[in-house]
Amino acid sequence: MTKHYAIGIDLGGTNIKAALVERSAGVVFAQSTPTEADRGADHVLRRIVGLVREVIAAAPKKEVAGIGIGAPGTIDWDRTSISYPPNIPGWTKVNLRDVLQEHLGENIHVVVENDANVAALGSAHYGAGRPYDAFIMVTLGTGVGGAIIYQNTIFRGATGGAGEIGHMTIDYEGPMARSGVAGAIEAYLGQRFLSRHARYRLLNYLDSPLHQDAGPDMVDLTPEMLSNAAGGGDEGALSMLAWAGHKLGCVLGAAINLLDIRIVIVGGGVSAAGDLILGPARETVQHFIKPGLREGVLLLQETLGNEVGMLGAAYLVFELLDTHALTPE
Amino acid sequence: MTKHYAIGIDLGGTNIKAALVERSAGVVFAQSTPTEADRGADHVLRRIVGLVREVIAAAPKKEVAGIGIGAPGTIDWDRTSISYPPNIPGWTKVNLRDVLQEHLGENIHVVVENDANVAALGSAHYGAGRPYDAFIMVTLGTGVGGAIIYQNTIFRGATGGAGEIGHMTIDYEGPMARSGVAGAIEAYLGQRFLSRHARYRLLNYLDSPLHQDAGPDMVDLTPEMLSNAAGGGDEGALSMLAWAGHKLGCVLGAAINLLDIRIVIVGGGVSAAGDLILGPARETVQHFIKPGLREGVLLLQETLGNEVGMLGAAYLVFELLDTHALTPE
Repeated sequence: MTKHYAIGIDLGGTNIKAALVERSAGVVFAQSTPTEADRGADHVLRRIVGLVREVIAAAPKKEVAGIGIGAPGTIDWDRTSISYPPNIPGWTKVNLRDVLQEHLGENIHVVVENDANVAALGSAHYGAGRPYDAFIMVTLGTGVGGAIIYQNTIFRGATGGAGEIGHMTIDYEGPMARSGVAGAIEAYLGQRFLSRHARYRLLNYLDSPLHQDAGPDMVDLTPEMLSNAAGGGDEGALSMLAWAGHKLGCVLGAAINLLDIRIVIVGGGVSAAGDLILGPARETVQHFIKPGLREGVLLLQETLGNEVGMLGAAYLVFELLDTHALTPE
Repeated sequence: MTKHYAIGIDLGGTNIKAALVERSAGVVFAQSTPTEADRGADHVLRRIVGLVREVIAAAPKKEVAGIGIGAPGTIDWDRTSISYPPNIPGWTKVNLRDVLQEHLGENIHVVVENDANVAALGSAHYGAGRPYDAFIMVTLGTGVGGAIIYQNTIFRGATGGAGEIGHMTIDYEGPMARSGVAGAIEAYLGQRFLSRHARYRLLNYLDSPLHQDAGPDMVDLTPEMLSNAAGGGDEGALSMLAWAGHKLGCVLGAAINLLDIRIVIVGGGVSAAGDLILGPARETVQHFIKPGLREGVLLLQETLGNEVGMLGAAYLVFELLDTHALTPE
């Protein structure tokens, strides 16, 4: 009998989200719980196990093929362990498959993958990426995440770490990102760098509502605030988004030259601004692609929202079923 | 009977080179002829056909499995046609497979691939790339070529154009490359850009032999001159190579972040300088890679020289044999 359900987990620093996913219908049941990351790795693991138990209880009996998990941090090539996830202090390296199998039964299949890769896989099968068998995904959130889908699946590189578009430099003498890479795109589009730039840029737009919303020195500026203000016609926010779109276009041009993958799907908070950021990015990207690769370039907005991570995580399990790495009972 | 020979052709703007390649032994016979590109596409095609006939005549009877061709310009996804090769004026789009089969027999297998990709495939099976199943290849010549080897074969992207590392920007406000991309690495390391930089840098090294060798305003500076002068201990040339290595490190960092492929093989004229350019590149590249991908980064010199293109071209045919796309008689 073929099992049509999988559990998809999105392990974040603030919340753990889990969904029961039916392959063609998508999310049929979802549950979420605070991560309480400050209470340490063991506590977080117990919360994951508890949440999975709740979701399994909602599934038709014996119909769950396995559990897929999207997580920050470094994932092993064999997709069982997470090392040093940022935002979960004290978590060194944990074999999440072993932990879940210990608590939920040895026969349950568990696949772990990087959260940006999982979001891209979700987009490929349930979101804006569905019509394409190859695309670049960029997520504009607190940081800048990235992933590559090639031949309908995640391009993993040599050790599983491919797709780190947020760390690509667009100016080798540019501002320093958290990673230490000068001019990395994250040093322009990451949340705290957007805030820093807004401090100067918005001096020319003293009427912008962002001066109220984002607090003194714009320290509380979120991607959502920017996109909302721009949607409301605020010139200051529009100018910020055009600037951000220009920078995004620069790095996407470099990525397209290297990969010859010309479909780009943009998700995350700032992407809610849609064409207000993607328009300027589309204009700029053409200037950073070599002639011969400029046709057919498409920059699209991912509209699935947070669900995309859980869907992609569940799809890790469906992929295993397809390749017969899992034998359905 | 398995055929062990293939013909590998390196179609350049100045010379056409062809080799009879035995799979394990490599080049067993080679021949070359001037391209005479100024006499037009039809003339060049006749010269290719004539050269192939000479090489076939040198092969054991009925032992040639097919012909592989590495060419500049855009190659179709199905690997039969070349469009607009630079350096061959008047060549719009030619189906090289059809032309060769028309003259040499319908049964002969013909595969065409981009010259940078072919060089990388040659390195993967006969050169510095042999120990690795994934690497990035960069060729520092008149321009800056690039290719990606992944799972022991060419990573082609969505339409066959992947690997264009020479067009990746490292400074979105930097100097303009021939392609129109600002700050593309070719705008630093391409031959005429190296010359331009040398004009200023070598004002501080008035004793450098390059002032004699490269002519007024350094217009005749070649990568080989630079590497020879540096090998002889010239401080001016060493300083140029360190500068070039720094720029190379910047773009390789960006490529490694995106691909998680940490082996880089550098070929072409300047690469003859070996550690004099690769040393500074190794130092810089670490600063442009995100933490977590910095270990195991290797920058290696390709030492095969011009042969690598013919070997890789021939290997296109051996690859087809392996995948049973060609049925041996």
